[in-house]
Amino acid sequence: MSLSVAVVGATGAVGREMLAVLEQRKFPSASVRAFASPRSAGVKIPFRGGDLTVEPLADGWHKGIDCALLSAGSSISKAVAPVAAEAGTVVIDNSSAFRMTDGVPLIIPEVNADALPARGKGCIVANPNCSTIILLMGITPLHRAFGVERVVVSTYQAASGAGAQAMAALEAETREFVAGGPPRAIAFHEPYAFNLFCHNSTVDAMTGLNGEEQKMIDETHKIWNDPAVRITATCVRVPVMRAHCESVNVTLKNAATLAQVRTSLTAFRGVSIVDDRLTNRFPTPQKASGGDDVLVGRLRADPSQLAPGASPESATRGFDLFLAGDQLRKGAALNAVQIAERMFL
Amino acid sequence: MSLSVAVVGATGAVGREMLAVLEQRKFPSASVRAFASPRSAGVKIPFRGGDLTVEPLADGWHKGIDCALLSAGSSISKAVAPVAAEAGTVVIDNSSAFRMTDGVPLIIPEVNADALPARGKGCIVANPNCSTIILLMGITPLHRAFGVERVVVSTYQAASGAGAQAMAALEAETREFVAGGPPRAIAFHEPYAFNLFCHNSTVDAMTGLNGEEQKMIDETHKIWNDPAVRITATCVRVPVMRAHCESVNVTLKNAATLAQVRTSLTAFRGVSIVDDRLTNRFPTPQKASGGDDVLVGRLRADPSQLAPGASPESATRGFDLFLAGDQLRKGAALNAVQIAERMFL
Repeated sequence: MSLSVAVVGATGAVGREMLAVLEQRKFPSASVRAFASPRSAGVKIPFRGGDLTVEPLADGWHKGIDCALLSAGSSISKAVAPVAAEAGTVVIDNSSAFRMTDGVPLIIPEVNADALPARGKGCIVANPNCSTIILLMGITPLHRAFGVERVVVSTYQAASGAGAQAMAALEAETREFVAGGPPRAIAFHEPYAFNLFCHNSTVDAMTGLNGEEQKMIDETHKIWNDPAVRITATCVRVPVMRAHCESVNVTLKNAATLAQVRTSLTAFRGVSIVDDRLTNRFPTPQKASGGDDVLVGRLRADPSQLAPGASPESATRGFDLFLAGDQLRKGAALNAVQIAERMFL
Repeated sequence: MSLSVAVVGATGAVGREMLAVLEQRKFPSASVRAFASPRSAGVKIPFRGGDLTVEPLADGWHKGIDCALLSAGSSISKAVAPVAAEAGTVVIDNSSAFRMTDGVPLIIPEVNADALPARGKGCIVANPNCSTIILLMGITPLHRAFGVERVVVSTYQAASGAGAQAMAALEAETREFVAGGPPRAIAFHEPYAFNLFCHNSTVDAMTGLNGEEQKMIDETHKIWNDPAVRITATCVRVPVMRAHCESVNVTLKNAATLAQVRTSLTAFRGVSIVDDRLTNRFPTPQKASGGDDVLVGRLRADPSQLAPGASPESATRGFDLFLAGDQLRKGAALNAVQIAERMFL
């Protein structure tokens, strides 16, 4: 099979990564076209030894496109995805536009590929939020083996999650800071260099949750098809370029030993264990950057849920773990291409 | 009253801050002497419009000293604190040497000043770990009003917690990184610029907890005099110069409304609420740096503990909050000077 593929939003951080992943994974496309806003038209993007010339997104862009990977923001997705899907294109959308829409599957291939639509006709498939993908790669193995009852997660999110401009802003602010300049907020509502702050999504006046936190809760319920799982999240932007980390506390339905937890994670495709207590080597953003797997470490029995005096190796329902995943790859571009692979290969 | 005060470890990040705090708070000392290792002897430190000349720590250093503030590491504290206390000096020790020693009070003045020893004779008083101080400033108001049953905390800890050298290393690594150099680990077991990692204390082979996490658990039990409170902690070093943040999930013994939680925090001395959902203004390291108060924000009902369909303003047992505190001030130097004030003023 040889497909015609489009990447929409090709000049953004995720769009460029989508092209890189298509090339690296030798996705069997006869043609790949790159679309972006008119102001980026004509930009050249290196691809498979040559260059793609960015085309402006115009009416009829989807004609002849079997599979479109969209990462151009929610409003563009809302405008172009339904038309393209109706016309027969498989649209894999990285924005939040359709994630919670009934009938639109929200997919992490390792987790819920069974929810993918039948092949052979146009549709929209939503790519989950990056923080949700990284979380669920790390805890779905535990959910399958022991049942997850409750999750308390705090994130350490990189600039990449807000795009190439945010990464450039972090670097610019940092240069100014080390040159002795006063703190300045270029990209966000707070200074970013050597600082950290509540995720830049809107904070709900009633619940107090920021948008990223609400996404992690809602998307987990949809992907696991389990609205009963109890989740609270605190989403924080930290001065890291690329790759998100998450500190996760889980309460299982059924007690397990640390060894059993480790075994379930080791067997899960797309997860790598980085967990060396002796040398203090655990997941970090730098170790995850550029890689495909979600790194899992700091595996330990939660002392607040261990019975008094119990060994940390005895069966218990509480565990702590720490995750790192490349937000641009598994958190976005790689997951989208993996969905395309499941739909077409 | 006019006292003779010594700062031991005066050239370190905390030692310098101790001198700054003594000056800023107009601590009534007739004399202040600065001690450090022989290699720092002769260094001049600005103080009260003049200079202190650093003296080498030698036998008999404590003679005539009413109050000694120690921040020179555990081994120095173990060597010099008992002798000085025996001879009549009030020793306030910022190291971990005596924190868990029976009979040595471990004090946050706003939290457990009642555990301070009687005035008028030599003794050792331990200053808690910085992360513990910041945590307990934020949740002791809730513990007093509603009882705290369980705490899940993830930290975002600055370079300052590892001293002046670590701050310099973070800056040096960052300069190299923005100049295009490869990541390099100068101060810690992992590269620090634009990265984050498991706290650099030793990780226990059996429990999997790093030393900082164990301190937060043990010290909370001692300070609250309540070994039943259940705590789990994940301690992470982030590329921030100064001031720690903590993402905290609490389960209360008795349900409370968000308004009641806010009222209990507002009334607590040493805490400032920074909590504006509309403009996304919450505690950050930069807002906490150089200040005395622990900043508390992101106050919200924990959705994982709310009854299904319940309003986030109804009474509930679960709350999330986010703390920021200057590690060098309330997390170390300020708390030590506040202890001295309680002992002498």
